[in-house]
Amino acid sequence: MTNWTAPTYPRDQCAIAGIGASDFSRASGRSVLTLAGQAARAALEDAGIAPRAVDGIVRCENDSVAHNDLAHVLDVDELTYWGSVPGGGAAPAAMIGQAVAAIAAGLARTVVVFRSLNGRSGERYGRGVAHGAEEVGGNGSLDELFMPYGLLTPGQMWAMMFRRHQTEFGTSGDALAAIALAFRARANANPAAQMADRTMTRDDYDDAPMISTPLRRFDFCLETDGACALVVTATDVARDGPHPLCTIRAVAQSAPRGMNPAVMFPALLRTSLTTQPSAWVARALYRRAGLGPGDIDVAQFYDCFTPTVLMQVEDYGFCAKGEGGPFIEEGSLDLDGVLPSNTAGGNLSEGYIHGMTHIAEGVRQIRGTSTSQVAGASTCLVTSGLPIVSSALVLTDGSEVVST
Amino acid sequence: MTNWTAPTYPRDQCAIAGIGASDFSRASGRSVLTLAGQAARAALEDAGIAPRAVDGIVRCENDSVAHNDLAHVLDVDELTYWGSVPGGGAAPAAMIGQAVAAIAAGLARTVVVFRSLNGRSGERYGRGVAHGAEEVGGNGSLDELFMPYGLLTPGQMWAMMFRRHQTEFGTSGDALAAIALAFRARANANPAAQMADRTMTRDDYDDAPMISTPLRRFDFCLETDGACALVVTATDVARDGPHPLCTIRAVAQSAPRGMNPAVMFPALLRTSLTTQPSAWVARALYRRAGLGPGDIDVAQFYDCFTPTVLMQVEDYGFCAKGEGGPFIEEGSLDLDGVLPSNTAGGNLSEGYIHGMTHIAEGVRQIRGTSTSQVAGASTCLVTSGLPIVSSALVLTDGSEVVST
Repeated sequence: MTNWTAPTYPRDQCAIAGIGASDFSRASGRSVLTLAGQAARAALEDAGIAPRAVDGIVRCENDSVAHNDLAHVLDVDELTYWGSVPGGGAAPAAMIGQAVAAIAAGLARTVVVFRSLNGRSGERYGRGVAHGAEEVGGNGSLDELFMPYGLLTPGQMWAMMFRRHQTEFGTSGDALAAIALAFRARANANPAAQMADRTMTRDDYDDAPMISTPLRRFDFCLETDGACALVVTATDVARDGPHPLCTIRAVAQSAPRGMNPAVMFPALLRTSLTTQPSAWVARALYRRAGLGPGDIDVAQFYDCFTPTVLMQVEDYGFCAKGEGGPFIEEGSLDLDGVLPSNTAGGNLSEGYIHGMTHIAEGVRQIRGTSTSQVAGASTCLVTSGLPIVSSALVLTDGSEVVST
Repeated sequence: MTNWTAPTYPRDQCAIAGIGASDFSRASGRSVLTLAGQAARAALEDAGIAPRAVDGIVRCENDSVAHNDLAHVLDVDELTYWGSVPGGGAAPAAMIGQAVAAIAAGLARTVVVFRSLNGRSGERYGRGVAHGAEEVGGNGSLDELFMPYGLLTPGQMWAMMFRRHQTEFGTSGDALAAIALAFRARANANPAAQMADRTMTRDDYDDAPMISTPLRRFDFCLETDGACALVVTATDVARDGPHPLCTIRAVAQSAPRGMNPAVMFPALLRTSLTTQPSAWVARALYRRAGLGPGDIDVAQFYDCFTPTVLMQVEDYGFCAKGEGGPFIEEGSLDLDGVLPSNTAGGNLSEGYIHGMTHIAEGVRQIRGTSTSQVAGASTCLVTSGLPIVSSALVLTDGSEVVST
């Protein structure tokens, strides 16, 4: 094989110039397209960019809003780039990565990246879906081989994976409670969060019904109607915008062998259930960013369920594998902890826009405008879903951050 | 707006290192995944690259084979990039563009770009599909507003657009016959073409049944079972491969206002039916390539129907708008014409893999291995679908081609 050296990642060359969202609710009463349009217009207004100037759109393949739908709503002059990323919650950071690549290659200047869904009043991802056998290699997956045995929902899968973590490392359920309580406290400070007014005590957590043992109600994320959009531009464009600069330091996505996109339950057949694809993403991400876990000021972890966060703090190197429980129980993810996390409330307590809101909150942290601001935050890790495949990115304030 | 200058297109920095295809037939007797795997393995073997080394996959959203399906079949070590492009026949060149951007941004080294379908024995794109009303902004389109009036198939739409060309410019049906006959002659020289053994005379063309007036049977492309795959790498990797170099000079995609992705019949409501999105693609493509129509040695035009080619020779500047008829009637697209085109037979006579085979044939022309080789060809224009949106690319032999 040729001794060709791949180009280095275009660190900090692109930025997130605008963020926007619709309201988050259980019943939007609007089409998904209306939600997407609201979020995109809000993001463009935030960036100070006219909607007609948009020339790129990156969407999630699971979104019911197609590129043309949003282009029509925004009345853009000409799209010169459009593309998609599959994989639902694993997609958001990878979508930003695709936008950066398009801009760096001169294919577009102003790229809207969005996710919109009526995730509560419409199709609910948390529900098991009955469907007939499909051709393998068709749009189906191997999931139908698991469903006849009662394995129907993502929550069941995460319950089994957490059990394995308990078996291997003696992890206590207290860690999960600490995650749910920390993120709820952040949501209580965030007026846009669905759980803004709903405080939670440890007793509330413990008293909630068991959904899939050992996971209780508050270990599950919210199902949400809403949309979130981001505007990606070159850093030199964003620098002249109305906000403090938030650059995209690096992005990575990974599907290691046996952890490929779009297969859900076969993840349970892997050699390890406690090391997730995040571990591969972390390696590539830190290498491209030239940073390590010790350089991260604040994190937004994809949190479809509480154990998802537990495994990621290990995979992203904030503690050793197996030590996530004690790490979290000592308050590390709290606002005054060593790794303040999910500062808008996350999927668990802000809303579940399939991980897209995590990036918007990362931008607010870098701008210094979060409702749970981490003082002086200049780097933010944002992760997108797992356990099937995963992606993540690091945001910075554009200063020449170097690894300490 | 900031006076930011977008990066220049990474001309010739990436190459198509391998091409592969399954056989083309009316009934493959295999799953789409099997076809995709055959094509991808063939392309990787052609490139001299081990399947496990693939780290990027770009697919068409219309493909029933997901990224993970193909990654499993190839048993890749780790995917570090995956993405999709919607829009069926408009996607292939844009898919190559996405692969180039990913490689240029350091996201992957070896990207497989593929299209696979059982287009004859499975779902047939040429057929009108009855379906119920769908939410606008859902996965439907505005097409359902046209269907109750009997406008059901792409062939009907192209018949109407060609009628408009005749009305505006006095174009003769002889031009369509010339296209069908030229491409059939190229297929007769190509053993892989579905029409390899089926010669066609002008009488055969004229005697064929009228399908959608004024389009006859041989103005329609073939519906095909098959797959085609391409391997995109950095040029410096491909240079050490087993074949003469074929670089990707530039790629462009465009969806001008009112010509956005994924909407079919509303194209008939546009101000002009005779200028297609190709005109916008051509502008961007030639600018990025630093070349003009006079620099193109050979062309592979997306040819779902014969009038599609007619409009493109105008939109890509090989003659003035309205002069496509006479230009084609004088034999310009023949092997000894000024613009030898669709030298493997095209969608019309080789097979309809939604435009992907056009790129493979472009590579063969640059390598000098086409069954209808244009002597000394060092540049090839390859276009992907229209009329909704479009994309295109220019391939070169990697020499410093400059505009004449």
